[in-house]
Amino acid sequence: MTDEERLSWAYLSRVAEPPCPELADLVAAVGPVEAAVRIRAGKVDPELGRLTEARKNIDCAAADLAVLDRRGGRLVTPLHDEWPALAFTAFNGPAVQEKSRGSAPLVLWVLGPQRLDEVAMRAAAIVGTRACTHYGEHVAGDFAAGLVDRDVAVVSGGAYGIDGAAHRAALAAEGCTVAVLAGGVDVLYPTGHSALLHRIAGSGLIVSEYPPGVRPARHRFLTRNRLVAALSGATVVVEAGLRSGAANTASWAAAMGRPVCAVPGPVTSAASAGCHVLLRGDAVLVSRCDEIVEIVGRIGELAVDPAHPQTRLDHLTETERVVYEAIPGRGVASVEQIAVDAAMPAHQVLGPLAVLELAGLIFEVNGGWKLAQTPETP
Amino acid sequence: MTDEERLSWAYLSRVAEPPCPELADLVAAVGPVEAAVRIRAGKVDPELGRLTEARKNIDCAAADLAVLDRRGGRLVTPLHDEWPALAFTAFNGPAVQEKSRGSAPLVLWVLGPQRLDEVAMRAAAIVGTRACTHYGEHVAGDFAAGLVDRDVAVVSGGAYGIDGAAHRAALAAEGCTVAVLAGGVDVLYPTGHSALLHRIAGSGLIVSEYPPGVRPARHRFLTRNRLVAALSGATVVVEAGLRSGAANTASWAAAMGRPVCAVPGPVTSAASAGCHVLLRGDAVLVSRCDEIVEIVGRIGELAVDPAHPQTRLDHLTETERVVYEAIPGRGVASVEQIAVDAAMPAHQVLGPLAVLELAGLIFEVNGGWKLAQTPETP
Repeated sequence: MTDEERLSWAYLSRVAEPPCPELADLVAAVGPVEAAVRIRAGKVDPELGRLTEARKNIDCAAADLAVLDRRGGRLVTPLHDEWPALAFTAFNGPAVQEKSRGSAPLVLWVLGPQRLDEVAMRAAAIVGTRACTHYGEHVAGDFAAGLVDRDVAVVSGGAYGIDGAAHRAALAAEGCTVAVLAGGVDVLYPTGHSALLHRIAGSGLIVSEYPPGVRPARHRFLTRNRLVAALSGATVVVEAGLRSGAANTASWAAAMGRPVCAVPGPVTSAASAGCHVLLRGDAVLVSRCDEIVEIVGRIGELAVDPAHPQTRLDHLTETERVVYEAIPGRGVASVEQIAVDAAMPAHQVLGPLAVLELAGLIFEVNGGWKLAQTPETP
Repeated sequence: MTDEERLSWAYLSRVAEPPCPELADLVAAVGPVEAAVRIRAGKVDPELGRLTEARKNIDCAAADLAVLDRRGGRLVTPLHDEWPALAFTAFNGPAVQEKSRGSAPLVLWVLGPQRLDEVAMRAAAIVGTRACTHYGEHVAGDFAAGLVDRDVAVVSGGAYGIDGAAHRAALAAEGCTVAVLAGGVDVLYPTGHSALLHRIAGSGLIVSEYPPGVRPARHRFLTRNRLVAALSGATVVVEAGLRSGAANTASWAAAMGRPVCAVPGPVTSAASAGCHVLLRGDAVLVSRCDEIVEIVGRIGELAVDPAHPQTRLDHLTETERVVYEAIPGRGVASVEQIAVDAAMPAHQVLGPLAVLELAGLIFEVNGGWKLAQTPETP
């Protein structure tokens, strides 16, 4: 890529508020250099003219790239090998007024040592409310640590609460984590997470479609959420109130045909109410990290069933169990009494009684039968 | 019904372990009196002969009915108006070895002032583990109280834990609750619940397909669970471990085509693990009583959506919101600065600015604009 091309991409990244399908169409048609020339000259169709009018004369592309270079970052365009496979073809955004956010990003500003395309091939988004509970923080951390242990990258938004817990746990487990920002990669937001985001840039990835210096804003968070979903094989909502950005991320994932998972919590917890709404819809309930790996991992990486509690009666046949149950909890029962209670002919209870005695579950007393232990009632 | 018929029904209720489809077939073919005569004489086909051999000579029907009469109870048969509509036609039990339990009960032994058929038309089962947590107890009580407030009867198994919490809350709310027992209606089990079961018999219903004196046993709990499901428009599992009778009740409900609901809980709680397994299957997540009423109630009794948190920005258009966001959190921005940040032509931000000023969200300072309050970030 020539310097002129790189400068053009950087200029285009700022000239319209991303994502801008009209701009993407022009770049696809004439290339970035010519697209930049036409926009500067105002020689574009009226709609793109309107979308670029306010910023077309602001050219800080060189300065933006200098900021990026100083931080050791890179501008990744669809022409780079590192460009990730994003699921932006033919999908409908969660709401009509958000349709314009449905298209792919024009470029990505990236910091960090990992390769974005490789990371995105095996990644899960762990997202949730900033107003999380200790429970949510615990689960987010537990899942994130488990995912990176299984070589799945943890994508999130760098926010307080669930996002932060997921990033921190991934870092603590020396795994790869990706923070997708709603502003420039040099605007570490929230400021209380600047140390965390620096650490992420040191071992994982910081990604933004906004050029340096752009402040996060409400609409940019919503736009950013679609990138979180697009970079992840599944989106896991750990805790979300009834009105939460995490639900927005989940709806982006669903619109892209990517699996949406949600973690249940107490129905008495407002921080889980949004998860429960998702679970009453099409979201998949996840209670263990393995269940996420099963979705984002390779075919055949199935979650192992958790061990079920066992009892000493598990290996008995149905008939043996009925005979066992026919022996009273206290005292001794004759074969005839057992036969009546079990509703079986007396000669048919003798075989089961012998099996039960061999299993150490009952013993004989004066020609009758007694339980070897207090039976558990089911 | 003649005394002879009543005595025959009572005799038949004990002569084979219920449910016994072979016995039901015979009664359907020749009536209860003739069926009893043939069984006593051993003049039945070999399989039914085997099933009735141990008990055919035990005739305590008169004594059983005397016990029932002393308690003010009644024997309800399919010939009575009170016989409930049970969903036992053409369904498969949860497991092959339990197939025989899938058929309808022969008769029901009933205590209590309510009409079983009417109660069953508007009832929900609230079931769960005996080893419940305070959370589960709270939710069971909350749902049960809410259901009876909405005139829905609460069906359960009378056990410790979730069952007991549901029954108690229904009684406390002066509503109708039904305990389905795994033994005779005179064997109040568990003994710690005998006072509770007496209270239920006083205002609601105690139901069993077992004649008086029959002890509860493991296989009878499983058989009883199908009746809990069959008497209820939906089965709600509040808390259940990975191995819980509640999951068995749920599988009966599912096999009968009745809705299965489960209450989520913390993924860290073993008492919710069974609910989460159900929710990863076809069970419906319920977090509020209204959502159960919506299922078991009349058509159109829809759960009201919970109030979502509102913000002052909710009524703004997308464009107005972008303009609002373009004003920095601190300081004053000129119209030109706002236009650049919003990526809109300067003349197009004037309208939105006026709307925002009228809404009290921003104000003018020396020709620039300032936020009226610290904006919430999403």
